[in-house]
Amino acid sequence: MALLSSTNTSLLTPLGFLERAAIVYGDCTSIIYNKTTYTWKQTYHRSLQLASAIRSLGIECGHVISVLSPNVPAMYELQFAVPMSGAILNNINTRLDARTISVLLQHSESKLIFVDFLSRSKVLEAFSLFPSNIKPPVLVIINDDDCDDLAEINGSNSNPSPAVDQDLDMTYEELMKRGDPSFEWIPPKSEWDPMVLNYTSGTTSSPKGVVHSHRGLFTMTVDSIIYWSLPKRPVYLWTLPMFHANGWSFTWGIAAVGGTNICLRKFDASTVFSLIHQHDVTHMCGAPVVLNMLANEPGKQPLQRPVQILTAGAPPPAPVLFRAESLGFIVSHGYGLTETAGLVVTCEWKPEWDGLSGDERARLKARQGVRTIATAKIDVMDVESGLSVKRDGLSLGEVVIHCGSIMLGYFKDPVGTSKCLKENGWFYSGDVGVIHPDGYLEIRDRSKDVIISGGENLSSVEVESVLYSHPAINEAAVVARPDELWGETPCAFVSLKSDSEQPSEEELIEFCRNRLPHYMVPKTVVYKEELPKTSTGKIQKFVLRDLAKVLGVPRARLSVTFTRRPHKNIQAFSFIQTKPNMNLSVV
Amino acid sequence: MALLSSTNTSLLTPLGFLERAAIVYGDCTSIIYNKTTYTWKQTYHRSLQLASAIRSLGIECGHVISVLSPNVPAMYELQFAVPMSGAILNNINTRLDARTISVLLQHSESKLIFVDFLSRSKVLEAFSLFPSNIKPPVLVIINDDDCDDLAEINGSNSNPSPAVDQDLDMTYEELMKRGDPSFEWIPPKSEWDPMVLNYTSGTTSSPKGVVHSHRGLFTMTVDSIIYWSLPKRPVYLWTLPMFHANGWSFTWGIAAVGGTNICLRKFDASTVFSLIHQHDVTHMCGAPVVLNMLANEPGKQPLQRPVQILTAGAPPPAPVLFRAESLGFIVSHGYGLTETAGLVVTCEWKPEWDGLSGDERARLKARQGVRTIATAKIDVMDVESGLSVKRDGLSLGEVVIHCGSIMLGYFKDPVGTSKCLKENGWFYSGDVGVIHPDGYLEIRDRSKDVIISGGENLSSVEVESVLYSHPAINEAAVVARPDELWGETPCAFVSLKSDSEQPSEEELIEFCRNRLPHYMVPKTVVYKEELPKTSTGKIQKFVLRDLAKVLGVPRARLSVTFTRRPHKNIQAFSFIQTKPNMNLSVV
Repeated sequence: MALLSSTNTSLLTPLGFLERAAIVYGDCTSIIYNKTTYTWKQTYHRSLQLASAIRSLGIECGHVISVLSPNVPAMYELQFAVPMSGAILNNINTRLDARTISVLLQHSESKLIFVDFLSRSKVLEAFSLFPSNIKPPVLVIINDDDCDDLAEINGSNSNPSPAVDQDLDMTYEELMKRGDPSFEWIPPKSEWDPMVLNYTSGTTSSPKGVVHSHRGLFTMTVDSIIYWSLPKRPVYLWTLPMFHANGWSFTWGIAAVGGTNICLRKFDASTVFSLIHQHDVTHMCGAPVVLNMLANEPGKQPLQRPVQILTAGAPPPAPVLFRAESLGFIVSHGYGLTETAGLVVTCEWKPEWDGLSGDERARLKARQGVRTIATAKIDVMDVESGLSVKRDGLSLGEVVIHCGSIMLGYFKDPVGTSKCLKENGWFYSGDVGVIHPDGYLEIRDRSKDVIISGGENLSSVEVESVLYSHPAINEAAVVARPDELWGETPCAFVSLKSDSEQPSEEELIEFCRNRLPHYMVPKTVVYKEELPKTSTGKIQKFVLRDLAKVLGVPRARLSVTFTRRPHKNIQAFSFIQTKPNMNLSVV
Repeated sequence: MALLSSTNTSLLTPLGFLERAAIVYGDCTSIIYNKTTYTWKQTYHRSLQLASAIRSLGIECGHVISVLSPNVPAMYELQFAVPMSGAILNNINTRLDARTISVLLQHSESKLIFVDFLSRSKVLEAFSLFPSNIKPPVLVIINDDDCDDLAEINGSNSNPSPAVDQDLDMTYEELMKRGDPSFEWIPPKSEWDPMVLNYTSGTTSSPKGVVHSHRGLFTMTVDSIIYWSLPKRPVYLWTLPMFHANGWSFTWGIAAVGGTNICLRKFDASTVFSLIHQHDVTHMCGAPVVLNMLANEPGKQPLQRPVQILTAGAPPPAPVLFRAESLGFIVSHGYGLTETAGLVVTCEWKPEWDGLSGDERARLKARQGVRTIATAKIDVMDVESGLSVKRDGLSLGEVVIHCGSIMLGYFKDPVGTSKCLKENGWFYSGDVGVIHPDGYLEIRDRSKDVIISGGENLSSVEVESVLYSHPAINEAAVVARPDELWGETPCAFVSLKSDSEQPSEEELIEFCRNRLPHYMVPKTVVYKEELPKTSTGKIQKFVLRDLAKVLGVPRARLSVTFTRRPHKNIQAFSFIQTKPNMNLSVV
């Protein structure tokens, strides 16, 4: 039955969603940003016009165009306009410094960059770091007449003149005027053609350029709509940066269902609550840290109607889930990586869990869950044997994924690509997890965040979860501190709620001791006003690990005989009981 | 960026949905049929077990397996089990006669056939029509201990012994016992591998074998879930035969969202109402004729809570839509063909239409609508010029489609395939329609059903819609009757509601004259107790056309001068005004 032809091989791409939205939802509101609103017809024609203008600059198919912008309307339009021009879209994290931005622009060979006016001087600095023989990209400034906190920004910003230089810079709207709003957008030649280039946020290593195809992004987008049961015409609040994996592909997903995009320049809990009330927001996304900020906002009030919030990016501590739900958020939880373009595992809720206690429900919801319908397979593999671990909720291994939205690879990095996209057909995530007897995945840690203490693999996330349940703690992160006796011990970094008294280090340790096996109890507690984070709200554990190293290596205060096992380092201290209820206490 | 590898090329297939349902919804009810219930874990393992048993019969990848069954649990399991064995699934319409079944079995080279016990003798008769040198497929009988109307069937059935011959026949459950419930199902080698073979219902021509790939069916299934905003765990009543384009791909879709399949052996309006109440049905599908039967059921009561009903397969008359909605059904309307695996155009409802009158809403909802998100393009093309028709709601042309779920082709029919899958990248549907100024498609007719009267292309569906609005009419179909003067004239076949008095022919014609341009008014009305239908509820117009021919060709009773235009036959009678308000009356 060799029946394939050009007619039945329709290319899968999410770009057509916008064209369709212009027909189906043409007069409905596509974007609201302060006093600015657009309809879907307008967003479609503005995107086409911009795509056409981009072509007029000499951009060709396969060129990379970078964007450095917060979640303003132009940022949303660019998610369509750039790939509709045939170019590859490269969103850059706005919080990166000039040096990193310079590295990314050179690495991506970006031909054009759209820059929010507040980041202009940083990007010019990045340009100045280019070698003299490499030409920086053409600069287009995204102005923002509707920025309601401009005065505040101007007052507090270290850069005294963030505004556009009218004589030198081309602005977004000026460029748009050069284009044709009825331009015919350029479809890919193959659905496997690259559409976006996203640099990873770099919690564990230097940024890598993740390349996704039109097909992969189509698959992720429809998959995400289904797992979240996204209805037609949701009101979606952009609390998740679009530069973070294209807002988990909801940039295109909201067009598919004709929703309204509520844009906002920066995350701020009180602004979020006020936008929710003002626009009857129905859906939003955010890392667990966003949930935590919402739950701890002093002026917060229970929501007038439930808001669906989808969280991912890090394992959410159960108490944070619990607090968010008690405010009226309906929390869905999933798991994905920049390399998967969005969520590939979601914590599908079972009706029989409704009757459980709040704590128990939060514990179940903190698990990452089961594969989505477009994810072919997930597994947790013992790294040494390459075999699936026992589905007992205890055996740790690396999470591996096989799905329709896995990246094409890391840009210009065949070695890095082959390290995680392996011959056996699996993508190796670098995350460490367990599979529970009911088939649900739970991430225990990034493999680099696992603490190996006395031969035990210890999940920092489990310790953090206990710390989060302490009433005074706002944020907690646990990393390895080098230790002469144990190899490593857990070291907790915590920040406290503004209205709380500081509990003593001993008090917190005692609190953990009552709730955890002794080997998992932090041996050190460090108080910080705020924990260092990536722009996407992930705590930067590599920074904390460096801080923990600076604390020095405590000397062993208990004499033991080492029984080294040369074949497996992590079992060097295997004389220690491996059962969680062991009683060997070391101070 | 040549980054493709085996790891990021995950195959798209809907078969994995069942494996996932067994994890996520394992203990939830998958199927209810009279007193029989299964959970998703059971349905998964029964399907695997059957797939394994099928392999034990010597079936290999690419072999065709036929199924002739109503919507009982085995039928649902077979939608997964057959392709999980690597074979191609061929559902056969249960209402076909032995001769046609014999033709299909030979054409498909079917190796194995699963047959409902009530169709056993018909299939044996079909076998007897095989040429002596061709071996009929192996027969497996699907018994039904839970058939609650067996007594009635035995009483009324012309075949006195529908039951299994215990000595000769292999039964479904016996075969299943040979299999292994933890069998590893066989994935396709390529996502383009054929998965199903569906013969068209043949309203206009002899049946054709439509072949669909795993990828096409995956795309259709996720697309359908999204356009219907199908929530998690719906209760889905199987009023649509699964042998009709695999129930528009909802066979796999219900597994994707972990719904409950309410099976039923035969459609009967009072049974449907009772199942809706008994199981809190949330969703169902059916051709417009199903809506009509529900709306005209004498003992019907308004629904206790709204039920989503998706209709397609023929343009629904606005009055039928209106009546169904007044009962409490929420009607969604879409358009697709066996060749598209399900619906590719749906009537997306706009909120601003909510405030319109009931008639106006029904008129808008009777339009087929706009492309779904996985449909790349639709258009209406002037057949002669090959150009898009004007988007004026008036210009007729052929509906053409380009989408991700177009068939691979017609099995063993390259000529038939090339007639509709054309080099220009479009699939030609054979349906005639218009595009309204707002971009919504409305089907006017099958191209063969268009009546050409006095040089005017006349949509039989528009005439039918007026007839349906007459209070006495139950069903109406309008076909061409040959006519010496006009070439063709509209001839109406109608059936009346049981409680209605028969209106006279003149009365009905007058009724139409008040509501239609004169050239569209039926010149003949024929009363029938019931109109002939395909098993999927489509009225068989080719049967009616034959009846209309038998009525003979009326002589012209008005002398006119023909101005033949040799270059375009359909304008042969072009002296007649082409405006709808023409006054030339011919009796």
